[in-house]
Amino acid sequence: MLIVQKYGGTSVANAERIKAVAGRVSKAVKQGNKVVVVVSAMAGETDKLINLAHQISSNPSEREMDLLLSSGERVTSALTAMAIEELGHRALALTGRQMGIFTDAVHTKAKIERITGERAEKALDEGYVVVVAGFQGITETEDVTTLGRGGSDLSAVAIAHALNADLCEIYTDVDGVYTADPRIVPDAKKLDKISYEEMLELASLGSKVLQTRSVEFAMKYSVPVVVRSSFNDNPGTLVTKEDEDMEKVVVSGIAHDVNQAKITVMGVPDKPGIAARLFKGIADANIVVDMIVQNISSDGKATDISFTVPKTDSKKALKLTEDIARELDAKGVDMREDIAKISIVGVGMRTHSGVAAQMFDTLAKHGINIMAISTSEIKVSCLIDAKYTELAVRVLHDAFELEKAA
Amino acid sequence: MLIVQKYGGTSVANAERIKAVAGRVSKAVKQGNKVVVVVSAMAGETDKLINLAHQISSNPSEREMDLLLSSGERVTSALTAMAIEELGHRALALTGRQMGIFTDAVHTKAKIERITGERAEKALDEGYVVVVAGFQGITETEDVTTLGRGGSDLSAVAIAHALNADLCEIYTDVDGVYTADPRIVPDAKKLDKISYEEMLELASLGSKVLQTRSVEFAMKYSVPVVVRSSFNDNPGTLVTKEDEDMEKVVVSGIAHDVNQAKITVMGVPDKPGIAARLFKGIADANIVVDMIVQNISSDGKATDISFTVPKTDSKKALKLTEDIARELDAKGVDMREDIAKISIVGVGMRTHSGVAAQMFDTLAKHGINIMAISTSEIKVSCLIDAKYTELAVRVLHDAFELEKAA
Repeated sequence: MLIVQKYGGTSVANAERIKAVAGRVSKAVKQGNKVVVVVSAMAGETDKLINLAHQISSNPSEREMDLLLSSGERVTSALTAMAIEELGHRALALTGRQMGIFTDAVHTKAKIERITGERAEKALDEGYVVVVAGFQGITETEDVTTLGRGGSDLSAVAIAHALNADLCEIYTDVDGVYTADPRIVPDAKKLDKISYEEMLELASLGSKVLQTRSVEFAMKYSVPVVVRSSFNDNPGTLVTKEDEDMEKVVVSGIAHDVNQAKITVMGVPDKPGIAARLFKGIADANIVVDMIVQNISSDGKATDISFTVPKTDSKKALKLTEDIARELDAKGVDMREDIAKISIVGVGMRTHSGVAAQMFDTLAKHGINIMAISTSEIKVSCLIDAKYTELAVRVLHDAFELEKAA
Repeated sequence: MLIVQKYGGTSVANAERIKAVAGRVSKAVKQGNKVVVVVSAMAGETDKLINLAHQISSNPSEREMDLLLSSGERVTSALTAMAIEELGHRALALTGRQMGIFTDAVHTKAKIERITGERAEKALDEGYVVVVAGFQGITETEDVTTLGRGGSDLSAVAIAHALNADLCEIYTDVDGVYTADPRIVPDAKKLDKISYEEMLELASLGSKVLQTRSVEFAMKYSVPVVVRSSFNDNPGTLVTKEDEDMEKVVVSGIAHDVNQAKITVMGVPDKPGIAARLFKGIADANIVVDMIVQNISSDGKATDISFTVPKTDSKKALKLTEDIARELDAKGVDMREDIAKISIVGVGMRTHSGVAAQMFDTLAKHGINIMAISTSEIKVSCLIDAKYTELAVRVLHDAFELEKAA
């Protein structure tokens, strides 16, 4: 088998952890597999570099930022190759360029365009373990690019596809994908498998097991992905195509996200074009708006509009919204950061009705008020007061009997 | 003017220092110059990476070591470019590869074979400040190489030659080249200029202002080099071709080196081939022998051979010598690490006689015993007891009236 193994920052946090990774790679090689290892930067290194850049410039060049940040993964790839060689194997560390990962030129969030990979293929045929620096690629003009936060997941999945690997293992610090956060729900169950689409909803909903774009890529090219822990030998969760078993399960998991802020514009004149003006202004500032709620006022003359944005952008969004609100003759702007988005996800929702109603009913029974709702084919999300986060996750886990999942 | 400015590790040790470097670059640009900046890794970073590698492997792959160590200079090049842009200039950070620095494949101590430099030239023509990651190059097969300790000096001088720069400024934490170490001799004088050959002797004698290979390169291609401090605006020392002024000065400077160990093989049978056997064994282990002294025994039957090696290799050299000594039926082996090599350097020695005699006489007058002597056309070195290091430097500085130099 050809296996791609990706190790995240906590899995390569220091020399001891890197040696443990090498031990795991060695085991896979001894079982007769060809192995490509993709590594992240050591935990904390990327943040350290970002902090240095911000000490120097409030608005650093993105091209230089990519050159800066790509160094962390290069360090880990070299160290990991050394550790694998120390166990008696041959290992070859490759940078994004040496792996032939060509991307577009959108620095700090580049898209992979093609992976040549000849050097890796040759090395694998010669018996080397290939260790690739994740998160990075190169443009046609030889500039270094990075793939955005969590981009090493995408590197791994894309390399698995390019080399036609049999499996892509994503090693992290949790055992796999759970029905809910086990720190909140002690009897949360680890799922043996989950569909790409469910994983995609969970990834984008703030369950940080896999980077969203890597799941999209895996789904598009049907790359079989296993999420598992580098700290033990538990089997992990297989992310794969939807099958009949999965459709029988109505709700697969519950996600929560406390990293959003809610902004409300009060007393907006109820005229056409108002919402367009507001959200165009925010989109132009590259701020992603998630949920939107518009309340029709009782007298039909003015309305309130609420929406959520990532907390990291909340100050910028508030300032923008205040400017636009003045221009629109609104009564005022209010922001709340003590909110949480609770979501239930499951491909079974497609064929089962009443799931959303059961969610609302469960929350209501426990006195949890819903501020906003958004839905997709396989997901229902509710915005609630942040103080009820754990309660909401627990009562929904109970209501949908997820402790019986597996 | 096209100026290459090289900044060492202490000059880019943190965000504040990098901003100060940017200020200096900005000044040179505002004076109408085109500037190429070559940077080292932030002070301490390279040692941190070497330490990590040794935690993982006692004998790490040199190819992977180069990939690992090259990351430090990439970080600094990106940060320095950001800092220069922050001051309103356009800046472009280039890796060794992007600068087109091609080397042979001797990892960890690669030799530069050619520098293409088209991208740098184009950027300079477009008004960019070009910031190059020092210390690194790339092989024809796209593997990353490094140029050995202090290799960023060599990067700077070689780039200055390749781009036909008018001047190569080496910024460090001292004001220039002194007649002796100012920490030992308070009235040591900074030299306004010094010849390549003298600088070469001083560099190889343990005065750490410039890396030896960079001086050889500068001499070979007549690259004008200025050594100066990044912490003040003092004019520094120009390293250039020998001229008439320089020849009038008998001794330009005094160097001391306490990083050698002396090994003595006692009672070696006085037969042909013995020295060859001994030094071939040591050379085969890649240990550089510096001074060699052989004492003819009074009875003509046995002899003592002493030689010096770098302290970093002393244990390895001692073990080897003991093995060879047994084979040669020698009486024993002894090692001393408390020794110092004191050297006087000056192109004027070529035309002035009696310089060596004056040195021996001065040391003898102060009760300093000489254990070994070596000479070249422009240098005399004496090996002495380490406890006399400061005394020897001071009395020689006095004897040759170096406090009057300039």
